[in-house]
Amino acid sequence: MTSLNTPDAVRARAAELDAADELAHLRERFVPMDACGTVGGAVLSYLDGNSLGRPLKSAAEALDRIVSEAWGTRLIRSWDEQWMELPLRLGDRLGEVALGAAPGQVVVADSTTVMLYKLLRAGLAAAQAADPARREIVVDTGNFPTDRYVAEGIAAECDAELVWIEADAGTGVTTEQVRDAVGSATAAVVLSHVAYRSAYVADLPAITQVVHEAGGLVLWDLCHSAGVVPVDLDEHEVDLAVGCSYKYLNGGPGAPAFGYVAARHQERMTQPIQGWMGHAEPFVMGPGYQPSPGMRRFISGTPPVLGMVPLGEMVELVADVGLPALTAKATALTEFAIEVTDGLLTRHGVSVDSPRDPAQRGGHVTLGHPAAREVIAALWEQGVIPDFREPDGVRLGMSPASTSFAEVAEGLLLLDAELERAGRG
Amino acid sequence: MTSLNTPDAVRARAAELDAADELAHLRERFVPMDACGTVGGAVLSYLDGNSLGRPLKSAAEALDRIVSEAWGTRLIRSWDEQWMELPLRLGDRLGEVALGAAPGQVVVADSTTVMLYKLLRAGLAAAQAADPARREIVVDTGNFPTDRYVAEGIAAECDAELVWIEADAGTGVTTEQVRDAVGSATAAVVLSHVAYRSAYVADLPAITQVVHEAGGLVLWDLCHSAGVVPVDLDEHEVDLAVGCSYKYLNGGPGAPAFGYVAARHQERMTQPIQGWMGHAEPFVMGPGYQPSPGMRRFISGTPPVLGMVPLGEMVELVADVGLPALTAKATALTEFAIEVTDGLLTRHGVSVDSPRDPAQRGGHVTLGHPAAREVIAALWEQGVIPDFREPDGVRLGMSPASTSFAEVAEGLLLLDAELERAGRG
Repeated sequence: MTSLNTPDAVRARAAELDAADELAHLRERFVPMDACGTVGGAVLSYLDGNSLGRPLKSAAEALDRIVSEAWGTRLIRSWDEQWMELPLRLGDRLGEVALGAAPGQVVVADSTTVMLYKLLRAGLAAAQAADPARREIVVDTGNFPTDRYVAEGIAAECDAELVWIEADAGTGVTTEQVRDAVGSATAAVVLSHVAYRSAYVADLPAITQVVHEAGGLVLWDLCHSAGVVPVDLDEHEVDLAVGCSYKYLNGGPGAPAFGYVAARHQERMTQPIQGWMGHAEPFVMGPGYQPSPGMRRFISGTPPVLGMVPLGEMVELVADVGLPALTAKATALTEFAIEVTDGLLTRHGVSVDSPRDPAQRGGHVTLGHPAAREVIAALWEQGVIPDFREPDGVRLGMSPASTSFAEVAEGLLLLDAELERAGRG
Repeated sequence: MTSLNTPDAVRARAAELDAADELAHLRERFVPMDACGTVGGAVLSYLDGNSLGRPLKSAAEALDRIVSEAWGTRLIRSWDEQWMELPLRLGDRLGEVALGAAPGQVVVADSTTVMLYKLLRAGLAAAQAADPARREIVVDTGNFPTDRYVAEGIAAECDAELVWIEADAGTGVTTEQVRDAVGSATAAVVLSHVAYRSAYVADLPAITQVVHEAGGLVLWDLCHSAGVVPVDLDEHEVDLAVGCSYKYLNGGPGAPAFGYVAARHQERMTQPIQGWMGHAEPFVMGPGYQPSPGMRRFISGTPPVLGMVPLGEMVELVADVGLPALTAKATALTEFAIEVTDGLLTRHGVSVDSPRDPAQRGGHVTLGHPAAREVIAALWEQGVIPDFREPDGVRLGMSPASTSFAEVAEGLLLLDAELERAGRG
């Protein structure tokens, strides 16, 4: 393998990889990034698919269809005909193709923050009902802000205590750290499966087991896992999980979250936002809240039907090609980005802030450089779109279904040029 | 005025009213109800606009545009360019054209249930912080189920007590009942402005004043008011309000809710679902939740952008024609429905279960008949779509922007025929 230390070598390798890529054809299924030349320059290289995945062409068609048909023509009847079951049906399908969850355990609703609040409250209450001494919620300092803020809020309102794990920026939370943090007072542990900054993949099976050995529940945040990294929730006996659908699941801006509650826990868990859509008999409209059996009890208000449409399309794409193929492509994309970084970018003082072992790395790569913020601003002007993460991170989020190796190559070559300029600056 | 006791008289009156209707042209702006002949018979008469308003054609176009442009081409940059402010900008516009709320007091986010939970928790906490003796939440037995269930849940978790007002099915909650229910222990009063079953309009100005005199806060549910009945939140010094956008605001199935918090309360109120999008500095991602100043603190997770698109279109329609014109048309539609009922339907034993005084009636009319459930099922088969409400209600929800008098006439004539058939049994 030749070192990728010239633009020609980088482009040649990208061309080879694209030619051999069995998923390359998927790229055509997405809305072109230069579809609308008038609102700004065309995007040359989109490296932020893990913040907001690109829209499938079929998502636009499906939205058009739902407006004219299910909404516009079937009107209110569509609630009976399909929408009442949609959050559970789509949840089942998502569980099957991306989460390793048997039917009846996943629901699509709310935002990730709200779903996290509901499930963590539900888990905490169940843990405390079984043993009032379990007053601790374990979280880590590197978890995504919403997870930390929600846990803080719940601890304050429910008279629980937070136990903080100091996450290493590069390696994330280790099994040993969790083992040290949990004990007879642990109610729940809230961790991200794939770290939003470093892409470090926590050892979900081992950590889940450690938490269970201490008698606690584990709630996994799958925002950066769903659709790109296997999770196998049932196999590893995960208790609770949440995730968003606008990253690798291409659900669109503010698309609804999903929540997972293991079947064995459902009947003893209730969530605090008691709405009519989670009632055992929503249309009787009688006095007194009675939670529905099963996952429906984790729904609160009217589910966001339009927001589920693009997700439904992407879930079928994942089903078509299979999650393993997407995981393999994601690994190849991140490997390539690291190779180019080693060959071309380290001379500018760039560090690789993500794990080098592909088994420990999710679908993105974060590079560190003191000029990250300015360099990214300059790249955005040129149609190369990575993400900035405090304090000095250039986060490259490559969606396996829509990103080509050539796209990564062109983005990193322009990053090289901007780092060169910053270095001279 | 001749009595409307024959089909010919009903149709003739409808034709007159349609000819004189200055809003008749608006009907053309909606997706036709027979746009898709293959998925079922065309709808002849849609009388459920207060459960799910019809889509504007421009909503479909705007969804198409956002997918190809803001999402598909601007991609993640759209968050900076427009979406971060969208929940507040759209809230401001909605407040201006439909709620009588000055800017900075309305946000669009979550489901109605979740928004209600957040604002009631916020209000209860603020009331108790000012005076720990305020432990009561006043609700009424006729309120929409979600409102009652949410209040029950909050009372249980926050050690508050519910004080129930027995709402009369026809007249709803009176000012006197509220006066009797509130006192020095009142924290908050949760009422619907327009009753979901009877369409009775509560005396919002007087009740708000009565609650304030007792030192409590009032939270109005505006689901059946927004876009059809004036509310004037600022003028009447309302404290808190929530509402949905899929009824008279035509936001689509599961469209996001709105929440109103009077500016004078915002800095002392915080809501329990602490998410990154309500943080003072969302992208610093630092430790510790700090609520944003102003209305942003009532946002939790990533706002549902796609779900706001149809609402944005309808809010502009309301702005175009003005709420007073829509209110007047709604009154004319409900008057006409009652006239036809009196002329043609009372002989079947139908009762008018909504107020006859238009000043006390919202945008719908509920008729009572023991065979309501079966009759409605038969009507649905024929493309006439009212709503059934327990135990015996035929609810006629006529959206002033999209419903013609002829449509009401044809629906009620088929209702007449079905009641005739049911009577012959």
